[in-house]
Amino acid sequence: MAETSGDTLAAPLFNRLCLIGIGLIGSSLAHVARQKKLARTIVAVDADPGVRKRVAELGLADEITETAERGVEGADLVILCVPVGAIGEVARSIAPHLAEGAILSDVGSVKCSVVADVAADLPAHVHFIPAHPVAGTEYSGPDAGFAALFRHRWCILTPLPDADPKAVAKLEAFWVGTGANVEVMTPAHHDLVLAITSHVPHLIAYNIVGTAAHLEEVTQSEVMKFSAGGFRDFTRIASSDPTMWRDVFLNNKEAVLEMLGRFTEDLTALQRMIRYGDGDGLFDLFTRTRAIRRGIIAQGQETAAPDFGRPHENGDSK
Amino acid sequence: MAETSGDTLAAPLFNRLCLIGIGLIGSSLAHVARQKKLARTIVAVDADPGVRKRVAELGLADEITETAERGVEGADLVILCVPVGAIGEVARSIAPHLAEGAILSDVGSVKCSVVADVAADLPAHVHFIPAHPVAGTEYSGPDAGFAALFRHRWCILTPLPDADPKAVAKLEAFWVGTGANVEVMTPAHHDLVLAITSHVPHLIAYNIVGTAAHLEEVTQSEVMKFSAGGFRDFTRIASSDPTMWRDVFLNNKEAVLEMLGRFTEDLTALQRMIRYGDGDGLFDLFTRTRAIRRGIIAQGQETAAPDFGRPHENGDSK
Repeated sequence: MAETSGDTLAAPLFNRLCLIGIGLIGSSLAHVARQKKLARTIVAVDADPGVRKRVAELGLADEITETAERGVEGADLVILCVPVGAIGEVARSIAPHLAEGAILSDVGSVKCSVVADVAADLPAHVHFIPAHPVAGTEYSGPDAGFAALFRHRWCILTPLPDADPKAVAKLEAFWVGTGANVEVMTPAHHDLVLAITSHVPHLIAYNIVGTAAHLEEVTQSEVMKFSAGGFRDFTRIASSDPTMWRDVFLNNKEAVLEMLGRFTEDLTALQRMIRYGDGDGLFDLFTRTRAIRRGIIAQGQETAAPDFGRPHENGDSK
Repeated sequence: MAETSGDTLAAPLFNRLCLIGIGLIGSSLAHVARQKKLARTIVAVDADPGVRKRVAELGLADEITETAERGVEGADLVILCVPVGAIGEVARSIAPHLAEGAILSDVGSVKCSVVADVAADLPAHVHFIPAHPVAGTEYSGPDAGFAALFRHRWCILTPLPDADPKAVAKLEAFWVGTGANVEVMTPAHHDLVLAITSHVPHLIAYNIVGTAAHLEEVTQSEVMKFSAGGFRDFTRIASSDPTMWRDVFLNNKEAVLEMLGRFTEDLTALQRMIRYGDGDGLFDLFTRTRAIRRGIIAQGQETAAPDFGRPHENGDSK
């Protein structure tokens, strides 16, 4: 039986939703907006003809267009789903075409630089409310999206001090409609939190995969064969979209360098423990780190299934 | 229908299998040895009365005993499944009790130190063949084991130069019987390969979880909430058994410090790219790291399911 709720009987939250950039997040938003009737009409904008073709084949949108200027016309919600480095340019090009009272938002993993790139150029009649759904997989493109991507995940809104509370509440209702939990914080705090929970983890994952790829003493074939010892988990993260992540690091430089500094300081201490055989120090750290995982599982941000429920019984990847 | 093969009709490979230490690996070996009829009798040894009780309740073994000296009597295959730091002491205590022609092996994640701790004290009539199944989950204890743990995984044998080829072949047949692939290499090469594919990945996972736990600007609650951005994958690894991992780092010091040095060198270069805004350098690295993951999936060491197939549709951890 289909899931029903009061919402589906009422009018959709938005009349015309324009999604600019149909990758993993854009296509997932299209899926869930349709499934949960969050918008009457869904307009998909993508500069790539191959992507537009797939959007049409997958039936993701009611209207598909190449030009963002045209796509945003009459839209009461516009969400920029392009890489962080491209947001400023797109925002400038659509600014004169945004409707009176429209909400403009984004899904970028960095917020201070997005605010700096977007806010100044907008007309006063537009509500700009930056957002970041903390959800994703290692896949990208219009085929990677699915309606449940945001379910039980957090979406962070970082409205500016002068934001209209009604517009913020409406965007919050949209994200709640996708199944996400919503939290509000400042752009600067967002960037610091994400530096430690997402950006530095990605950086060290990319880094160790790079290190492993360039050893002379250990072959790449050996690295792959014996990756089940821990390494393979890092390769998943290190196969995320290169453009997106280049832009993240270029645009959240200060917070990433700050958190990376802490990481390196702690790693140096750990290295000394190993060098000098401080077994108690190692044991203490390895015990303390377990508590954080228990908290993550308790909060529903992870499954407790061992080994991420990789399908052992049926033989992996068969 | 039960899986059948030619093997099940023949006599078991071993008459009496003695497993010393019934944690994740020991209990998984008990499961698979019974399921695949790899030994006529399974003897479980564990010093912990609570563990012995669970082994009895789970029906994991034909005989259960506290004392390794008694457990090994008459066994033609003895596998030490205790943490690396305890292997030497157990080996010394059982050495006088090992049967003529018995194979003594282990499952430790480090091999040079195991060879150093064990080989000297053994009687000449025992075949000592160190082994390391590269398989595991983040759980430990007798309840964590399951028969399919080793399936499609690699087990590395590191026989000494004077090892009896027939004994090596027989141990290899045992591991193939568990569903594993077998590779043979020297202990020193093993320790180097595992330092990069397993030990350093665990170290940096423990380290970043430790760093995140001690920030003043970002609360632990925030770290947990927004962990889906990458951090949670590290917490899985960082919740592995502290005793086992303390012993790994204390016993594979040189190879770990060597590989950690490479990792840090590469991370410093990456840090400079971020500081000086070298977008092309970042993009190049982030693109190259994808190839290794494709290789791991192609080799069946990982599933290609996005996000490790976390159960989005039903709501995580429900």
